[in-house]
Amino acid sequence: MKIQFVSKALKPLSISLAIVLQSCSPKQPAETDKPPVSDFMYQYSIIDALLGGVFDGNLTLGALKTKGDFGIGTFNRVDGELIVDQGKVYKISYDGSIREVPDTDSTSIAFVKFFKADTTFTVKGTTLDQLEKQLLAVLPANEMYAIRMKGHFEKLTSRAPGPARKPYPSLKDHLAKQQYLFNLSNTDGVVAGFLLPGYIAKVNVPGFHFHYLANDHKSGGHIFDFTAAELTVEIDKIQGYTVELNTHADFDKVGLDKDRQEELKKIE
Amino acid sequence: MKIQFVSKALKPLSISLAIVLQSCSPKQPAETDKPPVSDFMYQYSIIDALLGGVFDGNLTLGALKTKGDFGIGTFNRVDGELIVDQGKVYKISYDGSIREVPDTDSTSIAFVKFFKADTTFTVKGTTLDQLEKQLLAVLPANEMYAIRMKGHFEKLTSRAPGPARKPYPSLKDHLAKQQYLFNLSNTDGVVAGFLLPGYIAKVNVPGFHFHYLANDHKSGGHIFDFTAAELTVEIDKIQGYTVELNTHADFDKVGLDKDRQEELKKIE
Repeated sequence: MKIQFVSKALKPLSISLAIVLQSCSPKQPAETDKPPVSDFMYQYSIIDALLGGVFDGNLTLGALKTKGDFGIGTFNRVDGELIVDQGKVYKISYDGSIREVPDTDSTSIAFVKFFKADTTFTVKGTTLDQLEKQLLAVLPANEMYAIRMKGHFEKLTSRAPGPARKPYPSLKDHLAKQQYLFNLSNTDGVVAGFLLPGYIAKVNVPGFHFHYLANDHKSGGHIFDFTAAELTVEIDKIQGYTVELNTHADFDKVGLDKDRQEELKKIE
Repeated sequence: MKIQFVSKALKPLSISLAIVLQSCSPKQPAETDKPPVSDFMYQYSIIDALLGGVFDGNLTLGALKTKGDFGIGTFNRVDGELIVDQGKVYKISYDGSIREVPDTDSTSIAFVKFFKADTTFTVKGTTLDQLEKQLLAVLPANEMYAIRMKGHFEKLTSRAPGPARKPYPSLKDHLAKQQYLFNLSNTDGVVAGFLLPGYIAKVNVPGFHFHYLANDHKSGGHIFDFTAAELTVEIDKIQGYTVELNTHADFDKVGLDKDRQEELKKIE
């Protein structure tokens, strides 16, 4: 089945989406002697704990990789942005440098999945905002999606945090002093992230949440905005999600009653 | 390790809790040739979908049993209260009758776990409210717990809903017409349920949520209140939770933006 549609609302950038629904059937294991790959998102800790200053966790990246080959997050002490693509975990540090991270390092929060596209399409000439509006118009709002995008970005704005020192402040206060912005031009790379429903608030980020990794591994970060010349967009509809509670002692001490949705919007 | 404490605040019923911390180490599989039993709660669908009138689901009870041997929920059409104890699924119907349910029946929402007590203690002379306050005083608020109680109840008030007809109303409107109350006296039985943190709102029920099954299988239901002569309380601290999204077509159609916390408090 092929569905092709041309956006009328976004003529200035002449977006053309050719959506190919590759498969809507349940995921099949790649090899018959392996257990079926999970179609659930896995996450360690919850976003409101991070917002409240729980900056350490006990999950190694080696363990994280057993839960998914694709995703986003951060590291202990909020030491950079985390992106997982094709089974490899990368750190984008505050100085803009990128490195693959050893399995023994730990994360305080991460969201991963075994990525398998259900839907793939290409977009020419779009901003992030325009693309998000297009996706919201066609994707049922109560479902969950992992989204992977590859292409050429004329402009891309991202950030990475510097590591925090104890006693840890709230994430908002930490980023007010330790957020480093990257204004990238003509960069080729991959975007990893999720589109999640409102009912996951407090546990994860409602709406879109994307991290970036340049193909040359020389730039990346948590994405604020982009303009893309050409993008291949892969969408993986998710069957559900697993939340593993953070076992670090700080998790039991943080107050989680406060409504932090406005705080979250300001830093995302 | 044994911890024993006597409540001072609750003298009228002379509550005495003898808490025996049996084990706080990670769960071990019962037999070495079987995979380790999950320490996660599993749930099908989310509470706000049920509140909004998504009364049907596609999960069979046979499939539910593979996710846990203990828990609570309801059936398609909100046809009675669901309780799972020691691997068996029971329906408490609106007329107060109880029956074990075939694996081929389906549920629109259920919360289950493989129950293994970490903590067991006995209580003499307590109301539900008093017991809940005691538990909240000692259990870290950001964690999750499955709770199983067995004993003799001098009084117990519960309810079961009658089945709904299409087009389905909201759960609140359905219960306004189709909720049947049971005022039980001197009944022996088992209570199954959970204590969950506030951040799970919209997805599950924050706070306590209990269902009841009498030992003689002649009464039960969603618990509103009880006075217990003697109770054995088992607590199973939970490592995390998995949410499987309801695949029924109604799930994509329901509006989930509305804040239904007040609605939930009125019917729980």
